[in-house]
Amino acid sequence: MVDNKPPEGAEKVESKKTLKKEAKKAEKAAKKAEHKGTPQNESVSEEGDVSAGKYGNLPLIRSDPTAIQRKFTYIKDLNKSLAGELVWVRARLHTVRARGKQCFIVLRQREFTVQVLVNVSDAVSKSMVKFSSNIPKESIIDLEAKVAEAPSGVAGCTQREVELVASQVWVVSASIPQLPLQIEDASRPEKPEDEEGLNIRVNQDTRLDNRILDLRTPTNQAIFRLEAGVCRLFRDILTKRGFVEIHTPKIIPAASEGGRQCVHWSAYLAQSPQLYKQMAIAADFDKVFTVGAVFRAEDSNTHRHLTEFVGLDLEMAFQYHYHEVMLTIGDLFTEIFKGLRDQYSTEIGIVGQQFPVEPFTFLEPPLVLQYPQARKMLAEVGVEVGEEEDLSTPAEKLLGRLVKAKYDTDFYILDKYPLAVRPFYTMPDPQDPRKSNSYDMFMRGEEIISGAQRIHDPELLTERAKHHGIDITKIASYIDSFKYGCPPHAGGGIGLERVVMLYLGLDNIRKTSMFPRDPKRVTP
Amino acid sequence: MVDNKPPEGAEKVESKKTLKKEAKKAEKAAKKAEHKGTPQNESVSEEGDVSAGKYGNLPLIRSDPTAIQRKFTYIKDLNKSLAGELVWVRARLHTVRARGKQCFIVLRQREFTVQVLVNVSDAVSKSMVKFSSNIPKESIIDLEAKVAEAPSGVAGCTQREVELVASQVWVVSASIPQLPLQIEDASRPEKPEDEEGLNIRVNQDTRLDNRILDLRTPTNQAIFRLEAGVCRLFRDILTKRGFVEIHTPKIIPAASEGGRQCVHWSAYLAQSPQLYKQMAIAADFDKVFTVGAVFRAEDSNTHRHLTEFVGLDLEMAFQYHYHEVMLTIGDLFTEIFKGLRDQYSTEIGIVGQQFPVEPFTFLEPPLVLQYPQARKMLAEVGVEVGEEEDLSTPAEKLLGRLVKAKYDTDFYILDKYPLAVRPFYTMPDPQDPRKSNSYDMFMRGEEIISGAQRIHDPELLTERAKHHGIDITKIASYIDSFKYGCPPHAGGGIGLERVVMLYLGLDNIRKTSMFPRDPKRVTP
Repeated sequence: MVDNKPPEGAEKVESKKTLKKEAKKAEKAAKKAEHKGTPQNESVSEEGDVSAGKYGNLPLIRSDPTAIQRKFTYIKDLNKSLAGELVWVRARLHTVRARGKQCFIVLRQREFTVQVLVNVSDAVSKSMVKFSSNIPKESIIDLEAKVAEAPSGVAGCTQREVELVASQVWVVSASIPQLPLQIEDASRPEKPEDEEGLNIRVNQDTRLDNRILDLRTPTNQAIFRLEAGVCRLFRDILTKRGFVEIHTPKIIPAASEGGRQCVHWSAYLAQSPQLYKQMAIAADFDKVFTVGAVFRAEDSNTHRHLTEFVGLDLEMAFQYHYHEVMLTIGDLFTEIFKGLRDQYSTEIGIVGQQFPVEPFTFLEPPLVLQYPQARKMLAEVGVEVGEEEDLSTPAEKLLGRLVKAKYDTDFYILDKYPLAVRPFYTMPDPQDPRKSNSYDMFMRGEEIISGAQRIHDPELLTERAKHHGIDITKIASYIDSFKYGCPPHAGGGIGLERVVMLYLGLDNIRKTSMFPRDPKRVTP
Repeated sequence: MVDNKPPEGAEKVESKKTLKKEAKKAEKAAKKAEHKGTPQNESVSEEGDVSAGKYGNLPLIRSDPTAIQRKFTYIKDLNKSLAGELVWVRARLHTVRARGKQCFIVLRQREFTVQVLVNVSDAVSKSMVKFSSNIPKESIIDLEAKVAEAPSGVAGCTQREVELVASQVWVVSASIPQLPLQIEDASRPEKPEDEEGLNIRVNQDTRLDNRILDLRTPTNQAIFRLEAGVCRLFRDILTKRGFVEIHTPKIIPAASEGGRQCVHWSAYLAQSPQLYKQMAIAADFDKVFTVGAVFRAEDSNTHRHLTEFVGLDLEMAFQYHYHEVMLTIGDLFTEIFKGLRDQYSTEIGIVGQQFPVEPFTFLEPPLVLQYPQARKMLAEVGVEVGEEEDLSTPAEKLLGRLVKAKYDTDFYILDKYPLAVRPFYTMPDPQDPRKSNSYDMFMRGEEIISGAQRIHDPELLTERAKHHGIDITKIASYIDSFKYGCPPHAGGGIGLERVVMLYLGLDNIRKTSMFPRDPKRVTP
């Protein structure tokens, strides 16, 4: 239902001063009305304004009982078939440019933009055009307009075939005029050949300090929609396979591998839900997953570490071999990649426009390499890794390139890590004491999940903990978890932000955490 | 594929001692093998044992390359149509009882149980029966057995029409013999008339101290599967309505309403994701939800408070009236209740057997009461609540009973709380300064969500914060979130554990938190 009556309590602006003065005043009035906090009907328009009651600042929306009932049209849904129709749109004023008796507004709704023309006519006064041209960028406005075809096309807007011709312009929520960053700058493609882009960049701290504005870019809108998709796919795929979602405490008595102390609690923050996932297995939940905050003490001043991230964790009882679990996780990733490719092509495209990258490739079923194979591939290009040595980050990245060249996949599983480089609770290989039943998985050459068969026998677990020099008394409750019978099980933990970063080929994990935390940042 | 060969490395037990001694020895051997940590083939059975190689302790499952490939049958899938067939089952030994040349085992798999007969025959030796009768409760065993009809019915098992006749019995993971609680006791119905139940109860601390065992009861298996269902329904329903999942940091710089200090971080734990939900709205995500840990400093020594719980939070921009959001939340609950009723009737039934309760009732659309109406209903039964006064917990419960009697619903919405009893960021009513645009929702008379229209205007927000005596400098970043234009919005936060507790009519929130945290408990 379209309602063309002026909203109750709306105020109009006068039309007698010079262009500049009038604009200033309109802006001031806009801010005044917006900040007043209560509806008011303070008329400031002059007699004879043909647009009186068609523009101005809405009083603060406080859910008045006589609230307007109105059907808004989404910018993305505008098209030529609506030409000639009157629509209402609520959107942000992205940019505005005055030219003589006209003013051109670009309205933005998430990743979609449309051009609006406000020009002097029988129904639109000079004052209305001037008021419109002075609305601060990023303000939210309610616009009544006629949809018009744009035969020559609109450059710079996502809606190229149509534009809007305004008949009412109301400011719903005004922005302050000075913005710490411009959405246009923050949205500029990062291409080496793009000279304009090279000149105007918004640095990462400015972005994060003003995250509310930064998150409004089409790229960020797309990143976080895709991130929600990864979570949804992770859960839906596992739920279909009989996994049960659990919730594990973040406040813990002590950490088996350290943990952050919280004074008032005499407790720590969980570095991983692993103990609790394993307890759920010992408690017959069979296959479990959990999605939640994970806290890390490690030095996180790298492009891929955070002090707090979202863990997608899973744990699964198996029959006789941990490969049952490893391949379940491999298939999970295949299904996630297919889901993203099929359901998020728009988002992937938008991010790719700002941060160009090769499309993500994967094999079905996924490639599984053995650790000795990886060592051999690296040795062939002159990089020696000891039999019981871990892969360094550069070696991992190199291996990723070698695998990509040989197998054309950006995802693979590396199985049977040396026992020496894995945590104490990792099940040793039954035949070779130097090996373990553990695996990492990689995306674009970077690790995104580390997993293993866990030791489910209290005696062997005690023995391995002692071997690692761990004080048994401090992990007694962990060891005790297995003394009432526990099925063999394996699992792993995935870093959500890292999956999204690597899938999209982004260069920094702070781009995929909505409010990133690192040793230098706990705000906003 | 069924594989009847004895697993490699399996050991057998001898058959020469008295019943008791032999049993002891078998148990000892079982524990020894289980705890040894490496495969072994230490034969302890005597020549002439017709069951040699058909029972014993499996070596620790370490994913041997020659691992058994076997299809297990789930207990819940056993039925008369399988009579005469040989199946393999992996399950827990729930109870065992020896009687002469027979031994009766009850196997348990989550909430399902089946009776197993191990009796001396041409293929089953006395030793095998004795070994079986000495397996400690809660051990996990692999059983080969023939499905047999039980014409007279099996009492005390969920599978009443069939039982299993064992031909192989292997211990996969032995429990220690002394259990701190018995699953049977922990599963006993809490009915006043049940004298046996009154005599043997497992108290809450014992349960929580030994949560791994406690969680194995059919009721707990059902509770946490239903809890996973609430989460899934919450997310699926909102996703279908265009909400985007976000993740909010738990480590925060300071709290607008206090917060727990974490010394190493110079930071706090988030008491609510509200600031971040609102920032996501200011950042154009339009409709968002988040599921995650929420920390509360409040005194939690009640039946319905935890120091850490799972928050199901949502926030939504609206057009002109917060009822758009309130009714969206109301519909969300209706859909959750319908989903639980339709998809979790088994779980609801299981919990109801142990903790009997009236089925949960709800209206569609949900009942919405105004605060003055509630005051009037209470006044009619002699309970006076002041116009600007909050409802006490007893008053809430009484109101719940009155509403139930009058409208036959266990769920309702109470709208328009007094402004004085709501947080500073609550939008005041546009017409009556004593009222606010806020609501609570109730299940069985207890609050499960508190929500409101938030003030999206920095000036009004500042004014209200000052009115509440809040230091403006400490919440500057919160107030600043609204200065670049923000749509009007409302939302709310739901406590997951509380929803599950009240839906199932349980008496304590610790029953619906897998690893509850309160001021006295941070373990396990």
